[in-house]
Amino acid sequence: MGFKRIQDYGVKIGNLKCGKNNLITDVKGVKVGHTTLNNGDITTGVTTIIPHEGNIFKEKLVTASHVINGFGKTIGTIQIEELGTLETPIVLTNTLSVGTASDALVDYMLSFNEDIGVSTGTVNPVVCECNDGYLNDIRGRHIKKEHVFDSIRNADTMFEEGAVGAGTGMWCYGFKGGIGSSSRIVELDGREYTVGTLVLSNFGIKKNFVLNGIKAGQIISDEEAAIIEEEKGSIIMIIATDIPLSYRQLKRVIKRSSVALARTGSFSGNGSGEVAIGFTTSNRINHYEERDIVDMKIINENMIDKVFLGVADACEEAILNSMICADTTCGRDGHTLKSLVEYWDKLDLK
Amino acid sequence: MGFKRIQDYGVKIGNLKCGKNNLITDVKGVKVGHTTLNNGDITTGVTTIIPHEGNIFKEKLVTASHVINGFGKTIGTIQIEELGTLETPIVLTNTLSVGTASDALVDYMLSFNEDIGVSTGTVNPVVCECNDGYLNDIRGRHIKKEHVFDSIRNADTMFEEGAVGAGTGMWCYGFKGGIGSSSRIVELDGREYTVGTLVLSNFGIKKNFVLNGIKAGQIISDEEAAIIEEEKGSIIMIIATDIPLSYRQLKRVIKRSSVALARTGSFSGNGSGEVAIGFTTSNRINHYEERDIVDMKIINENMIDKVFLGVADACEEAILNSMICADTTCGRDGHTLKSLVEYWDKLDLK
Amino acid sequence: MGFKRIQDYGVKIGNLKCGKNNLITDVKGVKVGHTTLNNGDITTGVTTIIPHEGNIFKEKLVTASHVINGFGKTIGTIQIEELGTLETPIVLTNTLSVGTASDALVDYMLSFNEDIGVSTGTVNPVVCECNDGYLNDIRGRHIKKEHVFDSIRNADTMFEEGAVGAGTGMWCYGFKGGIGSSSRIVELDGREYTVGTLVLSNFGIKKNFVLNGIKAGQIISDEEAAIIEEEKGSIIMIIATDIPLSYRQLKRVIKRSSVALARTGSFSGNGSGEVAIGFTTSNRINHYEERDIVDMKIINENMIDKVFLGVADACEEAILNSMICADTTCGRDGHTLKSLVEYWDKLDLK
Amino acid sequence: MGFKRIQDYGVKIGNLKCGKNNLITDVKGVKVGHTTLNNGDITTGVTTIIPHEGNIFKEKLVTASHVINGFGKTIGTIQIEELGTLETPIVLTNTLSVGTASDALVDYMLSFNEDIGVSTGTVNPVVCECNDGYLNDIRGRHIKKEHVFDSIRNADTMFEEGAVGAGTGMWCYGFKGGIGSSSRIVELDGREYTVGTLVLSNFGIKKNFVLNGIKAGQIISDEEAAIIEEEKGSIIMIIATDIPLSYRQLKRVIKRSSVALARTGSFSGNGSGEVAIGFTTSNRINHYEERDIVDMKIINENMIDKVFLGVADACEEAILNSMICADTTCGRDGHTLKSLVEYWDKLDLK
Repeated sequence: MGFKRIQDYGVKIGNLKCGKNNLITDVKGVKVGHTTLNNGDITTGVTTIIPHEGNIFKEKLVTASHVINGFGKTIGTIQIEELGTLETPIVLTNTLSVGTASDALVDYMLSFNEDIGVSTGTVNPVVCECNDGYLNDIRGRHIKKEHVFDSIRNADTMFEEGAVGAGTGMWCYGFKGGIGSSSRIVELDGREYTVGTLVLSNFGIKKNFVLNGIKAGQIISDEEAAIIEEEKGSIIMIIATDIPLSYRQLKRVIKRSSVALARTGSFSGNGSGEVAIGFTTSNRINHYEERDIVDMKIINENMIDKVFLGVADACEEAILNSMICADTTCGRDGHTLKSLVEYWDKLDLK
Repeated sequence: MGFKRIQDYGVKIGNLKCGKNNLITDVKGVKVGHTTLNNGDITTGVTTIIPHEGNIFKEKLVTASHVINGFGKTIGTIQIEELGTLETPIVLTNTLSVGTASDALVDYMLSFNEDIGVSTGTVNPVVCECNDGYLNDIRGRHIKKEHVFDSIRNADTMFEEGAVGAGTGMWCYGFKGGIGSSSRIVELDGREYTVGTLVLSNFGIKKNFVLNGIKAGQIISDEEAAIIEEEKGSIIMIIATDIPLSYRQLKRVIKRSSVALARTGSFSGNGSGEVAIGFTTSNRINHYEERDIVDMKIINENMIDKVFLGVADACEEAILNSMICADTTCGRDGHTLKSLVEYWDKLDLK
Repeated sequence: MGFKRIQDYGVKIGNLKCGKNNLITDVKGVKVGHTTLNNGDITTGVTTIIPHEGNIFKEKLVTASHVINGFGKTIGTIQIEELGTLETPIVLTNTLSVGTASDALVDYMLSFNEDIGVSTGTVNPVVCECNDGYLNDIRGRHIKKEHVFDSIRNADTMFEEGAVGAGTGMWCYGFKGGIGSSSRIVELDGREYTVGTLVLSNFGIKKNFVLNGIKAGQIISDEEAAIIEEEKGSIIMIIATDIPLSYRQLKRVIKRSSVALARTGSFSGNGSGEVAIGFTTSNRINHYEERDIVDMKIINENMIDKVFLGVADACEEAILNSMICADTTCGRDGHTLKSLVEYWDKLDLK
Repeated sequence: MGFKRIQDYGVKIGNLKCGKNNLITDVKGVKVGHTTLNNGDITTGVTTIIPHEGNIFKEKLVTASHVINGFGKTIGTIQIEELGTLETPIVLTNTLSVGTASDALVDYMLSFNEDIGVSTGTVNPVVCECNDGYLNDIRGRHIKKEHVFDSIRNADTMFEEGAVGAGTGMWCYGFKGGIGSSSRIVELDGREYTVGTLVLSNFGIKKNFVLNGIKAGQIISDEEAAIIEEEKGSIIMIIATDIPLSYRQLKRVIKRSSVALARTGSFSGNGSGEVAIGFTTSNRINHYEERDIVDMKIINENMIDKVFLGVADACEEAILNSMICADTTCGRDGHTLKSLVEYWDKLDLK
């Protein structure tokens, strides 16, 4: 965490107050863990988001997913959309390792839920992905189950951003991308709630990059870096909150992540798999609920604009953090992606 | 109400207990009113469902809609799907009168909500339709605003079924169709709740008609009645309940109305506009809610099969009631649709 | 057409070439007509888009709709989504006049299609709306059928923008808004195709307004104009093209209109009904098609980014045109919305 | 293939003509392969549908998916829904083996496509599942990659039904279920086309079972077999055709698979993951298409009812075949599911 984040460069997105650490883990109970593989052609990894401190299978969370552009292989969303619940951690990795990661996540869930598949139903693993094939030997399938287990073991409230975990081999707007996070405070009925975001960035065309309104991509002209000039790749955006929301409200909330994409310069190109998943820690669904009718709390929809804005701002800042925290990285076949940091002076921000 | 209903003919759909009157109005607060135009070429009308006894704009209900086959012109569903609420009565009429009915419904809502369009937003009228053009001079646009107002004024807990209101000119499986209703009791946490349905039937191919498992359409062979042999027309299915449900749960619940269609012999033909709308009276959304966080109650999803089955059974019975309660009707250009009653003996049930 | 458009002020959105007149009508066959009511409290109107020169009911166009935020009352989209076709002109007007406009559109269609409702099915009117209640006595329901007929009669390839037609009473980012249009050229297989857009703008918070990357809303600080400070209102975006597209492709294409919203400063607030409808003139569906299998042409999906970008740029420019072409307008109860033109000097754009 | 199929018992579903072998493989180019594990507690397997004879990644097929009830873990549908294409075989297996099967399918695709992940993008594996945990030690994760490869190698136009492949451990309406298939002929423009279906059945409550209109579940009363009395489990329905269809048309077509479920007695219970995937072999999408505009053929939508009916009938018959072809099977912890064959005499059909 020695890296300077985008706020350290004087960039402030929007006017809302940030959470304590300006991380998704400002939402109480959320933890994030990485496993990083960075060795020659192997430039990939795993990032896991732990949604709460308990047994997530037994105490599910209200959850929604939203596909902005579906050129992607995220798994688990069919059940999320039907039941509106999350019952596993969320694992991020490279595209061709989704199967292995899913298998590992099932192993993990079975390890402390002996009822699954015996006296109760099965479990719905949620795994999201981006294609790190420019820097990573993605055909080599270097992610093993152990890497997923490690990322879960490593999970903590403090975590690194940039070229780390699932972000190790990713790129963003022609620069090095990866993992970024941010959070915003929303006040409701006089109490402070938190909206936290974590992105895995791997999208965008260099010349289109907009940094908080500044057409940075046009200012920075560097032949070397302009290698990836089609809008493909993908972005995964995870939104966590402790605001009481129903599935329908959460779905509306996470749709606003697309605003952040457009603000940074994306038009959601054909080849870009863009998926958002959001959960709230405030409404828990017991797997073995005994009552037929249960209580939940939701937001007064007239107040929801605050949450929309929080998501848009925190996702935009998370994308910028995923870039500015990422070191220049060399990978497969000598491919190199430079850090945005190396171009900062050219931007001449003041 | 002098008409015999399908249970009076000894037909029993499923094993669940029916509500007091076996009508949608068994859900407390719900009322239904008709305006019937039946005079030569003019064979049409209006049916209005009043969702609760208060000011529905100020106290909205949690609501969902589901399009089974979208060859239809129902209005109001975009906002229902976004906000999950109903803020007007639901009006049913013929296809080419949706504009007039919508206009009338807005008039009605403005008449007792002086804030609409001045100090608060506008209002979302919900109007559903089927095409009664076989019996009705639908191009004549005979529905006037006054007919909608009358249907609202006429609304009561007891109401007629068959060739009445919006159902006046409709057909079903080659017989006379129209309005039908039914209800089922669902017990949760030791308390009785009600699921009520009302259909506007106007669909189906005669030879495919299935009556509680009996291939009735194949038994009844009558050249005259086999005039409409393409599966077009439409059906509207309104589901009301007092069971606590979220929008997502309600959406799942009303999808099971399609089971009733299939059971009676439909394959949801290309030309058949099939739309379901459901609301629960248990969760009310105040237009001028002052709290930022509000409480709601929902069903334990593990118990929802009871509700699914109630909807499937009550919709199936409502379709049968819409047929068996409908008198043989003559309309436009001498077109005639015979009542299923006239063929009952041929079926030789028992 | 005496108004200066945004390009006349030196603002250029993106790098694609514009069509001949930089209007939606650059797509061959498309025409636009207005009826404007601007008289004291009555500040409203109608705008109609004629999709091609023939009988649109008999020769339908491949069409898709997309709801960005469904706090709106647009009608006709259920059938568009099921059948992927448009069979009437598209009418835009104020929210509470949708019923009347729909009724008028049905009248118009019946007038030259004697088969509708007699020997063939009915017709699906498409009417979109925004709420002009700040400037207009919207409760007065001043739109009559004749106004819709007039807008159809007035339709031409050249048409005015700004406070005209359905845009007469609308606002945008705290300034006067209304109708705006733009177009872009896309080259495919060596041939030039056109993407045209028309917006009815009525959304946005003043301080959030971004003009081609410049945070204009923050630069312009004017107490008077900051009357509408909640993101509600709505925007309708109509996209026309002659590029061969399937329904699915068209749906993807029009989704990119949301990029334009975000670029101008919107986060798609709760109260903002945002709907896009797009059609292509290249694939026509005959109502009385005699062949069982028909040919169509579609774009090679690997080329679709060009179209995505064209839509994003043309929608952004259309929004800016809807503002810069709009005169300062006084309406209901002395409410006034100033033109962006009056603030231009403050922006100090070169 | 020594098993008698449902037609051999005199049961005829609908009036349409069947294809040559009454199998999904009547659609030219389609092949099906099984790997069966049936040994004590291990009662599971893999079934693979090969969609055409060429390189499916290079020559993709127009494809759609439809979720009837999303309590399921099928993967690959996000990309199918966005791009409307299939680029791998479809693998069916047990719920907890989806990760392994997906991994194997990626291996297989990489093995003959050296460009994937190097000079072109990645690949979207499609894997569907049901929960065979009643008969199978599903926690044991007995499916290995080799089983998937074997099922691909085994693929042929003739294949077994019943307790075989992915169907080895499945149940249906309280009886033994598994794999079933059927096909129907549809004539268009004087030419014969084929609709083929393959189901993996694992759903339904015994007492609700309807056999071609006969309430068979109520007739057969057997205490032993009534072990599974909640509607959970799942069904996967694969629809193949050579009829020219667009993605939108295909989506409408496969929705009619739900009619088959209802006809056999299902109300799509909460716990039942019900997913349909359909593809047409008539429209092929070249991965390296060089033209910007391409031709496709689609059906005249006025003719689509024939296809709807074909799907409904063939899916219903496939479900019945999955039951009647399945042997009584013993599995985990001595659990046994009896074949419907054992109860046939009780039904006293004829």
